[in-house]
Amino acid sequence: MRPLQESHITVVGLGLMGGSLAGALRPHCRSVTGVARRPETLDIAHERRLIDRGTLALADGLRRADIVILATPVRTILEQLREIGPLLPAGCLVTDLGSTKAQVADAMALLPEHVHAIGGHPLCGRENAGIEAADPTLYEGQTFVLTPLARTSAQAAELARAIVGAVGARPLLLDPRRHDRLVALTSHLPYLVACCLVESAAATAAIDPLLWDVRASGFRDTTRLAASDVTMMRDILLTNQEAVVEALAMCASQLGCLTSLIDAGDEDGLVATLTSIQTRRRELYG
Amino acid sequence: MRPLQESHITVVGLGLMGGSLAGALRPHCRSVTGVARRPETLDIAHERRLIDRGTLALADGLRRADIVILATPVRTILEQLREIGPLLPAGCLVTDLGSTKAQVADAMALLPEHVHAIGGHPLCGRENAGIEAADPTLYEGQTFVLTPLARTSAQAAELARAIVGAVGARPLLLDPRRHDRLVALTSHLPYLVACCLVESAAATAAIDPLLWDVRASGFRDTTRLAASDVTMMRDILLTNQEAVVEALAMCASQLGCLTSLIDAGDEDGLVATLTSIQTRRRELYG
Repeated sequence: MRPLQESHITVVGLGLMGGSLAGALRPHCRSVTGVARRPETLDIAHERRLIDRGTLALADGLRRADIVILATPVRTILEQLREIGPLLPAGCLVTDLGSTKAQVADAMALLPEHVHAIGGHPLCGRENAGIEAADPTLYEGQTFVLTPLARTSAQAAELARAIVGAVGARPLLLDPRRHDRLVALTSHLPYLVACCLVESAAATAAIDPLLWDVRASGFRDTTRLAASDVTMMRDILLTNQEAVVEALAMCASQLGCLTSLIDAGDEDGLVATLTSIQTRRRELYG
Repeated sequence: MRPLQESHITVVGLGLMGGSLAGALRPHCRSVTGVARRPETLDIAHERRLIDRGTLALADGLRRADIVILATPVRTILEQLREIGPLLPAGCLVTDLGSTKAQVADAMALLPEHVHAIGGHPLCGRENAGIEAADPTLYEGQTFVLTPLARTSAQAAELARAIVGAVGARPLLLDPRRHDRLVALTSHLPYLVACCLVESAAATAAIDPLLWDVRASGFRDTTRLAASDVTMMRDILLTNQEAVVEALAMCASQLGCLTSLIDAGDEDGLVATLTSIQTRRRELYG
């Protein structure tokens, strides 16, 4: 395996995440090739100096790669992992930026033996999707989860860590299933809850449109995630069904508890619960 | 009634909201008197030049007031409205900053006939409570709801509008009950949902503490409101029980819909729902 500085890197998918990673990696490797579906995406990636070379053909993009980074929505990553085996140069490292990791790990386990593989999930993102929103500083200071497989060599993990370090992020090694259970609570559930808030408000606004005039910053922040890219979120939710449904059930149960306390006018119980939550939130964010 | 510039204003309760309002109004009136429970609060208010005069005695603070602004938690406002009648100078205007308005309107309706009254609710706030967090620019550009009563004269409403304008906010006249139904969706429900997210994550973190390491900005923003002042929120929830419980039921029902779609792997239904929500959210915030 070549060190990062001598590697040809291919990023498949030049959206917000892939485009930003391409731009961030360029100064740290020999070349970055971008693979996109639309020629316009490659034009923008070139204009913004995020890639050295662009191609619309996956096979062409993979031909000389030392490192392949799949940066498409999760279910596209799963399809690509099933297809690219025969196209991968021997000894190359395959990784990805998918937001769920168990199914990706299962698909990576089936890659040919002559390639290396490790899952990846940078814990950052923005609501604006697409190459237009790409920003090479996106990863700076962020946590970047790496999910090694049984087959992942120490050498491959080391190269993945170098990638994470090069874009300014902090690596966190985690079992893929454990990752998925945890992000169901910290990422997928917050998205779904934000969606429920928008839906509930919209249903009331259908009766009284003045509702939108009595919004404050709390509504804006709490619903921010509801603007996330739908294709990305659909793939995330459908590749983490079990953990997401479990997280939704926990949340529904908490909602039920709060409803009972308020409905019963149980002042002491309500204050105790809200205070413990407030303390927790303040501990987390100082 | 005296115009704002010639009025002596008394702000009862020098927390974030009252302290900020006192500081914002000072340049626009003859004097601002602050009423607080603790001498330390008055010291800070003086140091920060938010008030002209401070007192710990409500009766003393009300003695010469042309305008009285109750800026305590809602249920304290309700108590104070029951007590201050005999202490109010004839012709003075009584208003408040309480986050729910129906019960305040009912209590204001019982004030002596020789005083004016109108409810108020500025749609802004921060998680940091207390005089230390006070900021006279807090209201700039924000919506400030005014809830007139049957007894509110045009003159009184005009003076209330002048107060709102003086602190840089936009007045929005609204029926008290309608206000409460709407803010249940835009403010109280988002707070409760943020609390549920923190609780659900904490329950999982009790089993796997690594959860806190896989937080991203989405969790931070979606849970921000969970750090709100508990006394304030308790009073809000318990003076708007019916609308809050109804909002919680709507949200629970939306959560149930999303759970079914994900559990069934209903890709088309899920995408349709998430897309409509995403469109709505993007329309609201551009």
